[in-house]
Amino acid sequence: MPELSPVMTYLAPVGSILALLFAVYLVRTVMKESEGTDQMSKISLAIRKGAAAYLRRQYTGVGLFFVVMFVILLIMAFAGLLTIFVPFAFITGGFFSGLSGFIGMKVATSANARTANGCREGLNKGLRIAFNSGAVMGLVVVGLGLLDVSFWFLFLEWFYSNIDVLPNIEKYQAITSAMLTFGMGASSMALFARVGGGIFTKAADVGADLVGKVEAGIPEDDPRNPAVIADNVGDNVGDVAGMGADLYESYVGSIISSSALAVAAGFGLNGIVVPMSMAAVGVLASIIGTFFVRSSEKATQSVLLAALRKGTYGTSIIIAIVSFFIVRIMLGEENIGIYFAILGGLVAGNLIGLTTEYYTSDTYKPTKDLAQTSNTGAATLIIGGLSLGMLSTALPVIIVGVAVIFAFVVSGGSVENFEVGLYGIGISAVGMLSTLGITLATDAYGPIADNAGGIAEMAGLPEEVRERTDALDSLGNTTAATGKGFAIGSAALTALALIAAYTDEINTLIAKNSLNFSINASITNPYTLVGLFIGGMLPFVFSSMTMQAVGRAAQGIVVEVRRQFKEIKGLMEGKAEADYATCVDICTKAAQKEMIAPSLLAIAAPIAVGVILGVNGVIGMLAGALVTGFVMAIMMANAGGAWDNAKKHIEAGNLGGKGSDNHKAAVVGDTVGDPFKDTSGPSLNILIKLLSMVSIVFASFVLRFQLFK
Amino acid sequence: MPELSPVMTYLAPVGSILALLFAVYLVRTVMKESEGTDQMSKISLAIRKGAAAYLRRQYTGVGLFFVVMFVILLIMAFAGLLTIFVPFAFITGGFFSGLSGFIGMKVATSANARTANGCREGLNKGLRIAFNSGAVMGLVVVGLGLLDVSFWFLFLEWFYSNIDVLPNIEKYQAITSAMLTFGMGASSMALFARVGGGIFTKAADVGADLVGKVEAGIPEDDPRNPAVIADNVGDNVGDVAGMGADLYESYVGSIISSSALAVAAGFGLNGIVVPMSMAAVGVLASIIGTFFVRSSEKATQSVLLAALRKGTYGTSIIIAIVSFFIVRIMLGEENIGIYFAILGGLVAGNLIGLTTEYYTSDTYKPTKDLAQTSNTGAATLIIGGLSLGMLSTALPVIIVGVAVIFAFVVSGGSVENFEVGLYGIGISAVGMLSTLGITLATDAYGPIADNAGGIAEMAGLPEEVRERTDALDSLGNTTAATGKGFAIGSAALTALALIAAYTDEINTLIAKNSLNFSINASITNPYTLVGLFIGGMLPFVFSSMTMQAVGRAAQGIVVEVRRQFKEIKGLMEGKAEADYATCVDICTKAAQKEMIAPSLLAIAAPIAVGVILGVNGVIGMLAGALVTGFVMAIMMANAGGAWDNAKKHIEAGNLGGKGSDNHKAAVVGDTVGDPFKDTSGPSLNILIKLLSMVSIVFASFVLRFQLFK
Repeated sequence: MPELSPVMTYLAPVGSILALLFAVYLVRTVMKESEGTDQMSKISLAIRKGAAAYLRRQYTGVGLFFVVMFVILLIMAFAGLLTIFVPFAFITGGFFSGLSGFIGMKVATSANARTANGCREGLNKGLRIAFNSGAVMGLVVVGLGLLDVSFWFLFLEWFYSNIDVLPNIEKYQAITSAMLTFGMGASSMALFARVGGGIFTKAADVGADLVGKVEAGIPEDDPRNPAVIADNVGDNVGDVAGMGADLYESYVGSIISSSALAVAAGFGLNGIVVPMSMAAVGVLASIIGTFFVRSSEKATQSVLLAALRKGTYGTSIIIAIVSFFIVRIMLGEENIGIYFAILGGLVAGNLIGLTTEYYTSDTYKPTKDLAQTSNTGAATLIIGGLSLGMLSTALPVIIVGVAVIFAFVVSGGSVENFEVGLYGIGISAVGMLSTLGITLATDAYGPIADNAGGIAEMAGLPEEVRERTDALDSLGNTTAATGKGFAIGSAALTALALIAAYTDEINTLIAKNSLNFSINASITNPYTLVGLFIGGMLPFVFSSMTMQAVGRAAQGIVVEVRRQFKEIKGLMEGKAEADYATCVDICTKAAQKEMIAPSLLAIAAPIAVGVILGVNGVIGMLAGALVTGFVMAIMMANAGGAWDNAKKHIEAGNLGGKGSDNHKAAVVGDTVGDPFKDTSGPSLNILIKLLSMVSIVFASFVLRFQLFK
Repeated sequence: MPELSPVMTYLAPVGSILALLFAVYLVRTVMKESEGTDQMSKISLAIRKGAAAYLRRQYTGVGLFFVVMFVILLIMAFAGLLTIFVPFAFITGGFFSGLSGFIGMKVATSANARTANGCREGLNKGLRIAFNSGAVMGLVVVGLGLLDVSFWFLFLEWFYSNIDVLPNIEKYQAITSAMLTFGMGASSMALFARVGGGIFTKAADVGADLVGKVEAGIPEDDPRNPAVIADNVGDNVGDVAGMGADLYESYVGSIISSSALAVAAGFGLNGIVVPMSMAAVGVLASIIGTFFVRSSEKATQSVLLAALRKGTYGTSIIIAIVSFFIVRIMLGEENIGIYFAILGGLVAGNLIGLTTEYYTSDTYKPTKDLAQTSNTGAATLIIGGLSLGMLSTALPVIIVGVAVIFAFVVSGGSVENFEVGLYGIGISAVGMLSTLGITLATDAYGPIADNAGGIAEMAGLPEEVRERTDALDSLGNTTAATGKGFAIGSAALTALALIAAYTDEINTLIAKNSLNFSINASITNPYTLVGLFIGGMLPFVFSSMTMQAVGRAAQGIVVEVRRQFKEIKGLMEGKAEADYATCVDICTKAAQKEMIAPSLLAIAAPIAVGVILGVNGVIGMLAGALVTGFVMAIMMANAGGAWDNAKKHIEAGNLGGKGSDNHKAAVVGDTVGDPFKDTSGPSLNILIKLLSMVSIVFASFVLRFQLFK
């Protein structure tokens, strides 16, 4: 029933606008709340200022990058290597990704004191404020993502139907191929945001802990620590803005890659519209889902969790039901298998989240056992955490493997009919990410609660307020684990769809330009195999660079905090105020400087490999980076999370409690885990997709200049 | 000139016998030396007994495994899935691999007191004894390896020429295909030896350090420590027997895989004989090389190193010259490019060794910088070491990548003519390993010197003797770094050749049985890709298992040593003797128990993946494991080596020296690095080859029972 498609193409922009409107409504609700005492708003203002200063500087630096890339792409377009829309699509992708990070962070930094103040009233009030602010982030990401996708789709569809008229198949090929390239804008922006934010937040955190907690012996979030504001700013720039940009690009990437695969699979417009419509349905379902989230005053941890889960599971169920009709109507009964691919994606995302929770929560055996290893000191705890992280990669790999084969088979993929199966895999990533509006809400609310706790501490609010913010924060850790599962799982599926889209793109280019070349990305092809090696090595080198960046930046903070403790008289007695701004400034500068090298690596590698090893080498590299990056990301996230919770487990009074030798060992583990779980690990999700995006944009360049074929 | 081939087939057995004869000569030379004082021979005897007890128990356990596998293979042979020779070839592969480990260790444990005694006379004397004993190991490995290869080659050649007469091409296919399978015997044995030995040595080392050095505050190698003998036994079972079995299988693997590729490349008998002849030449060159190794009495570290280097470089030059003629004569002028592939392998092995040295020696910046990170404690040192290890993967990957492409291209490989290029890659691995006789000598002498140092300490020999053994030991660390480079690099190239051999084997089986199946191991094939994911995850899970095994076994030692300190009266005062045997026994039992699960994983995974994901999935799995395993092995070896040397750098008086906070942090790093560099890392080299070997042996089984095609 193809006559429905034109109508359905408007579902995405409508969904997008609804998401943005609802976000505006939520912002208003949140902003109506009071920030509490003068001191609370003063602290919140300092955090807001620091975060804004960081973003301003980051966007200036990144802006320069975008200008340079824009010019390069423009030259390539004039040289006939790209269509003229690519440079502009690249810019809008970056712009909207940055914008969603900006808005999310603005709201988060405005909500922290309000959440703390809400917790003075009660737990439910605090939860509502924090969750609604998180939901703004979720809705802005999906809203802007869908806006960008649908704008370009409708514009290009109009262009190729009226200006440069192309027959149907070629038209959709041209549209999806141009749309793929704006993914590179979003991915580049996401990498900068993740890496920069990750370096900022962990430099501040590690630096503050090393001098404050360890050397000076003052508690966390103590206002006498000059790095305390930087630490709180870090939660926002890393966990909010970074996470937002990250998932923005996953979201957009999954939609555009499956659209591209739809054309290759022969589904035409209907196939393109399915992922967009599903995303739109996901938006509406997420909005409905937010209303499920509320809790009673005397809520325990598990009641709170149930409240959040009600929201995410409710959304999932709505999507599961509506997608059936979308697939049935748009692709016909004979392709209903694709619906099961969607379900597979939804289930796989949740399962990966559960494994993350199992390996990192101290209610389960692995983290409890890990805490035990602190009996024989830091060394055995480090070995234990690394082993735990490595072991925890098994289940997610198997889950993704099953999801991939399942999606391929149920969609009707086979040796003879590859493309349909690949489209099914792409669509299952869209399924996994369709709940993003609400899963991101449950994720982004964590750092807000964390910040609220910091403000409660610094403003000297009563113990019970801090207890409530802690309850919210600790819950945030659990939901963040699930969120990370989605981020990693969807990155794997999306990257996979992007590799498939890349080979499609190459085949299209070969046909269009009648080139004498054909893809041979068999593993026994030495070029592919060497590409695989290089790709497998990239996540290691990339992680090394980002970890060392955190180390260097933290060192800068250590020196500065020591200087302030020494030079500012009366600081330790609480009579003088610390110079918070300098620490924020050091982190900002360090993050900007340190994010350049790893980001350039991600952009230069596919081009260099392409020129030297050719297209078959690039495909190998993408697969190698995908596999190692995925496994490393899980390892780092879970090892880091487990160390963190093992420490909290000990701090809760187990194994000698705070101040014991076990606790000291656990602090070492937690510090090692910090860059693992919040800088290097999450950046890998973006790395594996950015590599594909760059490869796609430079495909025609590489095809022309490859040394070995 | 094919008439030369029959003559050349005897070069290998001749080389093999010469190697073994020269080894016997060296053993006699070593055994003529005195063991020194009564106490020295008493200590040496205790180590010898412990090592023998370990090997006895290990071989009993492993023997059971071999019997079971033998029966399985026999059943498969009767079912027509394998030729009848496979079970027997499997057994001999395991037997000879075990035998070379056994002999190497016998000599090493007889040479330790003799080396210590030699050092009483002077440095050169000590070096000669230790080096000659190491050379026995090297020569036994290459001698037995060549013996096994040439026996089977000559026997099968006779069999298929006289009993079951086959036309030439099919004959050589049948011969090389049967020979490939005894690689599985050698690989299984190697894995058991490496994993078991690695667990033993690090459990003893970590356990002895944790209680002895850290808790009781007594120095290393102090006779009051009940785990001290176990620690010294560990050096022998891990670094000597484990390393020997490891390189035995690399050596044999590279020869048999390139023989198999020779047939596919169309070189026939001549192509098969080249790798065997080169290995034989390598043996002779290594024997000549050993005569280059001697030093003056007043030798400094660098003079000693130069002495050893003279031996290895001399050997390399001889091989480089003679191989030219071998290739020229056997393959003709038109294939002289293959000679350059050999040179490429030789150079690449040395270069990887140099990068290992650069990243792990404290004469260079990386390890010096790492030592600096101890200024801010254990956490930053751990982060620093992990980053260093991750970064250090870049150069080896690029070197291997260049070597692979170089070998492929110069051998004449191209899209149309793959097989020749793959043969070139296989041959370059043989080139890299042809110096094994002497590189293994410089490697195996390290643990002998280490043991000699321990005996000098325990027997209370004068300070200058200990200084000399320390000089030898420290030199051993540098040569061990080079040796590790060879082990890792050759494992990568050999595994690569094995993957190619596997696909050849599959194609042969398809043709022979007229199966309706063809390989499609393109990366975009979901089965291959999921296989790639699973393969990429295996090294992580495997490392996790081995690391945790070390942790558990070390815990057992800690408990036992604490018990002895408490219960044996007068032990700490030196009036009573510790019960060394119990600690040896605990390590032995733990190693036997703990090595089962990871080894079974390595054997079960290819079969399970084969049945579920089919042949294309297996190829993906092999490639994934190769890439991740290679990168992880380098990461672990270099991080571990750098931590070790950063600690030694501090102990040499830098950054506060022994007992400082920096030193304490460095001890944590060293302890984390122990299982990295001596258990998990080196085992990965074997894992990646064993997976291929198992896949090859079970190829026909998988072809028949694969669920997805």
